[in-house]
Amino acid sequence: MLGNLKLEVAFSPALFAGCDLNNAVVVVIDVLRATSAICTAFESGVEKVIPVSTIEEALSYKEQGFLVGAERDGEQIPGFDFGNSPYSYKNPELKGKTVVLTTTNGTKAINMAKEADMVVAGAFTNISALTIWLESLDKNVVFLCSGWKGRFNLEDSLFAGAVIDRLSQNYKYGELSDAALASKYLFHTADADPYKFLRNSSHRRRMHRLNLKKDIKYCLTLDQTQIIPILKNNELVNLQAYHESIAH
Amino acid sequence: MLGNLKLEVAFSPALFAGCDLNNAVVVVIDVLRATSAICTAFESGVEKVIPVSTIEEALSYKEQGFLVGAERDGEQIPGFDFGNSPYSYKNPELKGKTVVLTTTNGTKAINMAKEADMVVAGAFTNISALTIWLESLDKNVVFLCSGWKGRFNLEDSLFAGAVIDRLSQNYKYGELSDAALASKYLFHTADADPYKFLRNSSHRRRMHRLNLKKDIKYCLTLDQTQIIPILKNNELVNLQAYHESIAH
Repeated sequence: MLGNLKLEVAFSPALFAGCDLNNAVVVVIDVLRATSAICTAFESGVEKVIPVSTIEEALSYKEQGFLVGAERDGEQIPGFDFGNSPYSYKNPELKGKTVVLTTTNGTKAINMAKEADMVVAGAFTNISALTIWLESLDKNVVFLCSGWKGRFNLEDSLFAGAVIDRLSQNYKYGELSDAALASKYLFHTADADPYKFLRNSSHRRRMHRLNLKKDIKYCLTLDQTQIIPILKNNELVNLQAYHESIAH
Repeated sequence: MLGNLKLEVAFSPALFAGCDLNNAVVVVIDVLRATSAICTAFESGVEKVIPVSTIEEALSYKEQGFLVGAERDGEQIPGFDFGNSPYSYKNPELKGKTVVLTTTNGTKAINMAKEADMVVAGAFTNISALTIWLESLDKNVVFLCSGWKGRFNLEDSLFAGAVIDRLSQNYKYGELSDAALASKYLFHTADADPYKFLRNSSHRRRMHRLNLKKDIKYCLTLDQTQIIPILKNNELVNLQAYHESIAH
């Protein structure tokens, strides 16, 4: 007997408005590279990541003395502390710090999801921790793919499919939307070699031109962390800290 | 050496705004059932199909004495001449007539595409004629999936993938977007048995409840017609008539 929890995917922020957020946790996905970089930042001990949508907001935080990452079109914006390469957040000196971040797609998607009860960041680097946690909830799951400037992209959809492939083995998820089914089928096509599968993807080509091969490899490597970044009062915190703050 | 023509897919009308219409032909897809029904109407000798977005517009045509089809949520609206079952347009008495049509998704998508140079209707029933004609042009192709109420659906994406699978064997289509690649992969997954593939699709489940199994079978049967419906002054005509009108 199948349960009645639903799995839904918005292939792009433009499709998010059509998603039912009732009793839902939203997983925001920007595999290349925002959500991967955010996971890495928390793994380095960062306390908070404040996602902002515009460069103006990022600048105003910078002027207040915050550490600020800013990326557009795959490149770090001059004058800021970081871009969105995960490697720039692999730094023990970030322990306990707050980082402000604006990226081309990912941070906008996180802000768009704010109205949902629960919003977390997903990446291949935290896929198993994320999946196990999602299964522990009695909630529908909406995957919000950041895409590329409002368009569909392969890598975010592939990640949604990878998680859905695991979740849909649990009887409690009884209803997969067409987009959830399509993501799962895409993942099955790619399963043998996701790196090869993404060879032709537009963003990988874009990043290849920018010589970001090492970043791509990192972002496609599973389970480098147990951390789940979760939104609390418009700021991302480590799920563990979130639970502790609720318990106190 | 690959050519520089592009293949792009909007998985839903909500994603169409992001598509580059420069030198593009737009293929509007509503496999279950609007674009299939439109092909059938032309096969029966209908001269024009006027796609309208709202029931109010449809009513005003009805009051002027037009034959009008109107469907919402899979069912014919009482008081109109047809719904969107292809079988209701399989009628030799329609020869030379004009039909006005409004459907939940398809006719809205056709109207949305109006600004493009060329807009045609695609369905499994005219897939080979359509594909051969597209290849004869030197144009980019944008596939506009009607989806379901703004959401992604499997059957329209599958059709886009089936055409892209054929077109991408031609060297001149050198650039496939991520959505075009994903559609092609979906088609490969479904190729052995599209009927089975769509078993779990939401719209098929919806139509199954409405007892429309015969319609689904019809709409998934390849190459029942050579007709390509094309938009001319906001009305769909048979491509052959379109060419003749240009020649005169």
